[in-house]
Amino acid sequence: MTSENIFSTIDKDLLTLNHNLESMVGARHPVLHAASEHLFTAGGKRIRPAIVILIAKAMLGKENGKVFYSHERLAEITEIIHTASLVHDDIIDECTTRRGVPTVHNMFSTKIAVLAGDFLFAQSSWYLANLDNLAVVKTISKVITDFAEGEVRQGLVSFDTRIMVNEYIEKSFYKTASLIAASCKGSAILSEVSAREQDKCYLYGKHLGLAFQIVDDILDIIGKPDELGKPSGSDLKNGNLTAPILFALTESPELQNLIDNEFEGESDVGQAINLISKTQGINKAKDLAAEHIQAAINIFSSSKDIEYEDYCNLVKVSSYVLDRIN
Amino acid sequence: MTSENIFSTIDKDLLTLNHNLESMVGARHPVLHAASEHLFTAGGKRIRPAIVILIAKAMLGKENGKVFYSHERLAEITEIIHTASLVHDDIIDECTTRRGVPTVHNMFSTKIAVLAGDFLFAQSSWYLANLDNLAVVKTISKVITDFAEGEVRQGLVSFDTRIMVNEYIEKSFYKTASLIAASCKGSAILSEVSAREQDKCYLYGKHLGLAFQIVDDILDIIGKPDELGKPSGSDLKNGNLTAPILFALTESPELQNLIDNEFEGESDVGQAINLISKTQGINKAKDLAAEHIQAAINIFSSSKDIEYEDYCNLVKVSSYVLDRIN
Repeated sequence: MTSENIFSTIDKDLLTLNHNLESMVGARHPVLHAASEHLFTAGGKRIRPAIVILIAKAMLGKENGKVFYSHERLAEITEIIHTASLVHDDIIDECTTRRGVPTVHNMFSTKIAVLAGDFLFAQSSWYLANLDNLAVVKTISKVITDFAEGEVRQGLVSFDTRIMVNEYIEKSFYKTASLIAASCKGSAILSEVSAREQDKCYLYGKHLGLAFQIVDDILDIIGKPDELGKPSGSDLKNGNLTAPILFALTESPELQNLIDNEFEGESDVGQAINLISKTQGINKAKDLAAEHIQAAINIFSSSKDIEYEDYCNLVKVSSYVLDRIN
Repeated sequence: MTSENIFSTIDKDLLTLNHNLESMVGARHPVLHAASEHLFTAGGKRIRPAIVILIAKAMLGKENGKVFYSHERLAEITEIIHTASLVHDDIIDECTTRRGVPTVHNMFSTKIAVLAGDFLFAQSSWYLANLDNLAVVKTISKVITDFAEGEVRQGLVSFDTRIMVNEYIEKSFYKTASLIAASCKGSAILSEVSAREQDKCYLYGKHLGLAFQIVDDILDIIGKPDELGKPSGSDLKNGNLTAPILFALTESPELQNLIDNEFEGESDVGQAINLISKTQGINKAKDLAAEHIQAAINIFSSSKDIEYEDYCNLVKVSSYVLDRIN
């Protein structure tokens, strides 16, 4: 299943989104403009805005049909926050390419990358405030705190093979799932559904976000650089011990050794990837991702409040997350 | 006049502020906690929160007397935003000391500094949203956009001696005055005064902020490192052409030469400082700061709506800004 099929119901929304993203961050300054355009035109998967719009459609149901202007704005804000976090993330992880193009700090400078990230975060706060909905502002502003905390946690446990899968899940929540969960809840708030429905949307986003991160971490090991848009094995190299690595470690003392020595040679990362592929690490990580996808889908499976078509779309977008590794 | 005298009317507020700042940024994470505490205990001048509280008192008048809890929170938020901007600023300007202690990126790392700044910005957004006042959220969130834009502008015109004093003022607005102006307006909004009074407070903060930046820029040239808490001449070194330098340039072709050559030798910065001291640059910059202080004071001089005591306090805090260089 290609992403085109899944996103086809919201094609028009995503087209507007791409256009709006450029004009929203269309800074009054050429360098910031270049830095952000560079990122937005590089084209992410736009999965976050897609989820916001699909949740909006599901919550509004057949009667309303069309999503609100504020939903579209929230979808854009979510993508801007995500992009801002990537720009700062790349400084922190010292990544040189992203989405197949040089990262901002590589193409411009660390200085410009710090500023471009700040600028994007600031723009998102500004647009967020202008949604004129305090509950949404509160829900989303919590995310950026989570994001910073997740990054610090990740940095501090580099190469620490004692970390457990539940700690990894916690880190992944802060790093990825918190934004998706909060933006799903925000989308529900804007649809004016009950607090119970809002919480369901939050949970859906949380599980989907966790699965998304696990899949990303699997791809970092099994993906090809040209498909990833960045070098593979970068988590290993940075000592960021993700699910497949943690599972593999329980089977491979040799892998443990390589990581304890923090990959002295460049070829050690390649060797570590080989070792992981000989274990059940990747499969176990796939199972973990599948569990979270199932948990996400289950949330709406018994719901009589959402239309069957909307339910199918939420299932489809969830499955798409898993399909990336199959 | 010492800062103790001026701030004496709000002593208790500032004491609570210092305590609250530590617990507000009391991150769940030890490194972020260390990074932020490091900054807050290093002790800034706390002039921004002081202004917010003084404006609150002036707007509430005799009848209300006591500032609201939300005013105190806004004062704290303002200081957190300022501190976040300093952390990222120090990465951008490659400063190694600030407020007499090593900067975060120097003491920890650039990575931690990027995160600590993000974390502080995020905390401020979160507390801001929890003020439950959309108008204040909008007013303040605009500031962070201005800040990022100001920094970029500053970076791009390094060593460009063609910039004019009005461009310098514009940069200073984005960099410093925007936050002070917006927090004064925010304080007025929380006091529930009319839009006209809110605008007056904004203008007061804007002129005060501009004067503050000009004075800071003068101190960068005439101050001693132990008083500044950072090396002197750092603006010159970074090619950040501030008011005293721009005024001096009109008199000294020799200074022009040194700057055009971007200070090839380390001693060149010292030589440039000497050259500036022989011109009217410092005096002209002092006059410019005094003009903005006067403009700030004038805003309330004809106002029958504020108490004489409150007016005097606003005059005092404005004069304190100038007294730092006299």
